[in-house]
Amino acid sequence: MLVEFGATRVLCTASVTEGVPRWRKGSGLGWVTAEYAMLPRATNTRSDRESVRGKIGGRTHEISRLIGRSLRASVDLKALGENSIVLDCDVLQADGGTRTAAITGAYVALYDAVRWLADRKALVGKPETVMHRSVAAVSVGVIGGEARLDLCYAEDVAAEVDMNVVCTGTGDFVEVQGTGEAGVFPRSQLDALLDLGVAGCAELAEIQRKALS
Amino acid sequence: MLVEFGATRVLCTASVTEGVPRWRKGSGLGWVTAEYAMLPRATNTRSDRESVRGKIGGRTHEISRLIGRSLRASVDLKALGENSIVLDCDVLQADGGTRTAAITGAYVALYDAVRWLADRKALVGKPETVMHRSVAAVSVGVIGGEARLDLCYAEDVAAEVDMNVVCTGTGDFVEVQGTGEAGVFPRSQLDALLDLGVAGCAELAEIQRKALS
Amino acid sequence: MLVEFGATRVLCTASVTEGVPRWRKGSGLGWVTAEYAMLPRATNTRSDRESVRGKIGGRTHEISRLIGRSLRASVDLKALGENSIVLDCDVLQADGGTRTAAITGAYVALYDAVRWLADRKALVGKPETVMHRSVAAVSVGVIGGEARLDLCYAEDVAAEVDMNVVCTGTGDFVEVQGTGEAGVFPRSQLDALLDLGVAGCAELAEIQRKALS
Amino acid sequence: MLVEFGATRVLCTASVTEGVPRWRKGSGLGWVTAEYAMLPRATNTRSDRESVRGKIGGRTHEISRLIGRSLRASVDLKALGENSIVLDCDVLQADGGTRTAAITGAYVALYDAVRWLADRKALVGKPETVMHRSVAAVSVGVIGGEARLDLCYAEDVAAEVDMNVVCTGTGDFVEVQGTGEAGVFPRSQLDALLDLGVAGCAELAEIQRKALS
Amino acid sequence: MLVEFGATRVLCTASVTEGVPRWRKGSGLGWVTAEYAMLPRATNTRSDRESVRGKIGGRTHEISRLIGRSLRASVDLKALGENSIVLDCDVLQADGGTRTAAITGAYVALYDAVRWLADRKALVGKPETVMHRSVAAVSVGVIGGEARLDLCYAEDVAAEVDMNVVCTGTGDFVEVQGTGEAGVFPRSQLDALLDLGVAGCAELAEIQRKALS
Amino acid sequence: MLVEFGATRVLCTASVTEGVPRWRKGSGLGWVTAEYAMLPRATNTRSDRESVRGKIGGRTHEISRLIGRSLRASVDLKALGENSIVLDCDVLQADGGTRTAAITGAYVALYDAVRWLADRKALVGKPETVMHRSVAAVSVGVIGGEARLDLCYAEDVAAEVDMNVVCTGTGDFVEVQGTGEAGVFPRSQLDALLDLGVAGCAELAEIQRKALS
Repeated sequence: MLVEFGATRVLCTASVTEGVPRWRKGSGLGWVTAEYAMLPRATNTRSDRESVRGKIGGRTHEISRLIGRSLRASVDLKALGENSIVLDCDVLQADGGTRTAAITGAYVALYDAVRWLADRKALVGKPETVMHRSVAAVSVGVIGGEARLDLCYAEDVAAEVDMNVVCTGTGDFVEVQGTGEAGVFPRSQLDALLDLGVAGCAELAEIQRKALS
Repeated sequence: MLVEFGATRVLCTASVTEGVPRWRKGSGLGWVTAEYAMLPRATNTRSDRESVRGKIGGRTHEISRLIGRSLRASVDLKALGENSIVLDCDVLQADGGTRTAAITGAYVALYDAVRWLADRKALVGKPETVMHRSVAAVSVGVIGGEARLDLCYAEDVAAEVDMNVVCTGTGDFVEVQGTGEAGVFPRSQLDALLDLGVAGCAELAEIQRKALS
Repeated sequence: MLVEFGATRVLCTASVTEGVPRWRKGSGLGWVTAEYAMLPRATNTRSDRESVRGKIGGRTHEISRLIGRSLRASVDLKALGENSIVLDCDVLQADGGTRTAAITGAYVALYDAVRWLADRKALVGKPETVMHRSVAAVSVGVIGGEARLDLCYAEDVAAEVDMNVVCTGTGDFVEVQGTGEAGVFPRSQLDALLDLGVAGCAELAEIQRKALS
Repeated sequence: MLVEFGATRVLCTASVTEGVPRWRKGSGLGWVTAEYAMLPRATNTRSDRESVRGKIGGRTHEISRLIGRSLRASVDLKALGENSIVLDCDVLQADGGTRTAAITGAYVALYDAVRWLADRKALVGKPETVMHRSVAAVSVGVIGGEARLDLCYAEDVAAEVDMNVVCTGTGDFVEVQGTGEAGVFPRSQLDALLDLGVAGCAELAEIQRKALS
Repeated sequence: MLVEFGATRVLCTASVTEGVPRWRKGSGLGWVTAEYAMLPRATNTRSDRESVRGKIGGRTHEISRLIGRSLRASVDLKALGENSIVLDCDVLQADGGTRTAAITGAYVALYDAVRWLADRKALVGKPETVMHRSVAAVSVGVIGGEARLDLCYAEDVAAEVDMNVVCTGTGDFVEVQGTGEAGVFPRSQLDALLDLGVAGCAELAEIQRKALS
Repeated sequence: MLVEFGATRVLCTASVTEGVPRWRKGSGLGWVTAEYAMLPRATNTRSDRESVRGKIGGRTHEISRLIGRSLRASVDLKALGENSIVLDCDVLQADGGTRTAAITGAYVALYDAVRWLADRKALVGKPETVMHRSVAAVSVGVIGGEARLDLCYAEDVAAEVDMNVVCTGTGDFVEVQGTGEAGVFPRSQLDALLDLGVAGCAELAEIQRKALS
């Protein structure tokens, strides 16, 4: 599925394979992992392909791991059984918030994949049992001292604080990452950002619900 | 630009940088090169990312080189001046003929980039002088003894002979690659495939003309 | 310098070179970066060397970037001038909290390096101007529903929520990363963890002050 | 065996192993693959070793794949049974036409290897059944508007069109690759090159027959 | 264990795993191998991490192989049974003679590991049967025409001849490597260096004996 | 030049480039380095290409370094001036003693290259001043308790002690490497091997002299 947040466009797909990685065999548990990448021309100036450079950069690694962790929180890995799902999140066009767009879109792709497994009778439980929590993410930031939701690239660069909030549909946190890009931030600012992030995620949860029905 | 040939969808973009690689400096000539890649889920079963495997496979290399060679034939590198253009061809969805779709689409992206250079007064000649030949490509093949244009994936797998024909708008050849996938082929079959390929390229040249005007 | 937090031992060194990476030249600003690594036998079961595997894993990348970001917050890069400092954090023995120990220790190593620069008259300002904020970090977590400071490895594995808090000496945040390892966490728990983290960092700031005087 | 075409010298060897790659197991079919490489000093100016650079270049990949494909056309893979043969083609000295020399020489090395298998009773059929078609290759090109057989390096550089023709002993095509190095070429030129290539391959087929008897 | 020779400090650890590499399975023999590495700041000027460069340098490879070979001489691999021991030698601080310090320290770590195996009843024979020879190593060199034991870094750089001598506790040779760094050396000098090396190893053997009892 | 020692055949070439590596610029000194490699079918069972594996093995590194060191002893790097010479030693067929054959052959190739430089007036001194010492190498070993010169592969495998001796034409040592493959060796055996090695090198020096005149 193709997710669009402003000018950011991320292609999220889920691929199912029977079985799990070797270190997990016999556990009865499934596995969900993610791979994030940007097309070289997703940004305004072309960046080199990681396949050509022969190695994956730190940023790519970090985001892939964040997406995988976040989505695993949405799944009851026991109910999934020994199946593996890879979530590919490829950024076609980037204008800020690519990692949070990827998480939000990957949730829908993952749900679809679980339904497909259920249709093929490859699932013990029902899809809504396996997908026991909805998960969505937003980026929030402080610009000019003010908390702002869903920064575009120009805002992201100007932000004093940059934060990613990953929430469930019921408003609990899955992951919180905040960093003072240009300095440091007091507790009051952190609290304002968290409020904004939780509200933003709630809206996205609603959109996800509609997309899936 | 996004090219679609049946179910095959390739995203072709052109990125311009001033200057040329070191080995070409001072020659007064420009440079055009291409990078081809497939998203992991472009095909029906997911393939591993080349960035994750840490190296580019032989097939990717081969196609990138073919695209680069073909497109350089469309450009008067002297009139381009010491500018470099990278053509990125990313296959979002693959159903046969991805390399020929990439060449055909990259030609339009390249022409656009040259116009953009002209608009910025970074070009000595006019765009139509720099782009001195139009270039398009088709895949043709023999299935059940019969020559066929534009094979989809299922046909490609079944083909006895598989050929890529790259032609200019005036019907000359830029590149011809034919291989007997399941055996060998006589001269008569080769001739029939070439006829079909030339005709197919002529139709594409017309479509390119429309897209660019 | 060798930092010890319980059974965790991290060797932190700072290496100064004149000049900055190419993309920063002429900016008048300095640069601080970090590299984190674990000796193969730092953990209880031997892990393969990343040099032998030929690539750096995602976890290593992620932590190196976190340390670099955190320490840059402590430095006035303008006052540092065009000098580069690499912080090497090598874990000799790991028992939880290696990344926070690395940040806390690297701050002291970095301060020492800045003083060394000042002694060599290679610094415009005074060390205390360059090092404009002290930075320390702790890991906090929720175990059995209770917020806990400074988790050892056994606790870390058992934690329901795992959080790293990086603070300045004045109690502002530099970075906050919280993740629900075994599920999700409500706002109340997040608040408790933040309180605990801020308090822990304050204690460390005191220890750093003593170590540096 | 050492093949010499003018000043081009290629060492071609065939190595047999029992069994086939995993993806082919149980198919009853054999496998033939090729690896092409140049010694660093095969050309007039030394080129870096691909082992030192840590990756195989696009040209090497492309030629290795061409040799493998061409030679598989000569073999009845069913009659070969589940055996694998690797053809190593190492260019000791290069003066144009190294890939076609490699194909022509590898055919003889491959035939020898099949005979060796037959001698060890590891082959169901006879060598002449397994090697059901002879395969040879030549390079042809257009220089100064004239079609020419077997270009040396100086000619190759000057050629307007460069073509590799791989034929069976009975004059059918296995592979045809033509490229307009300095421009494009009309159908009439393509036809002239194909005639020349077929004739050249016929001569080589004769030489191969003598070498094998 | 941490070995110190002057200002050189090497951390030597032994890690035991049941079983042996595939090529050795079923032989009834154990396997001992070593990995040597330097922390980036072990030397006076920081060297790049091999994990970051993505490959292991020639010097590291060479020393790892030397340590492995030397220590295998100390072990009766049959009495060890199908167990594998990896010796990690990480140089924390380097001031000449790191490879010989690593061999000498790794012997003690290896002996400890064998005792640990014996304690767990995983050994057929007794530790002293498995460890059938003690092994120690020294560096010797010629400076200003004079043979010298145990060169520090400054001496090592100035040495005309540089030699590593690996001996058993009974004075036999395991390995001898001598190289004329700044020129060549006559037989008489070689003899003097060997005498000195044998004497130095004898002293170390005594120290090892004490460390192990 | 192609060196043959029994069934061992090594192709040794020298490539000259003006200038020296960056770290040596302005020193007025030249540089000599070597790269050793084996063709995959040089041995009786095919070994994988290091270019395909994407990294150079420890053995290759070790031997390349030994050849480079040995040959640098033959050259007055000051008289060579700021020129670089790469010695490529490619083993076409291996039957023991490939590294010593490579050193002995590379000396002749190096001398030729120095003469070529002199012919082009690119050398300050005369070739015989630059090549101030001749260098040759032999392998010696102990089999069945007896010292033997120039071991072939079968002997090499059976050897109890294996030693490489690199000598100048006047009988001084450049490098000595002895290892107890199957155990350890007393001083008396080491002495016998050295005697044999020196004698063997003297014979080779004579052959080199003839080859160069």
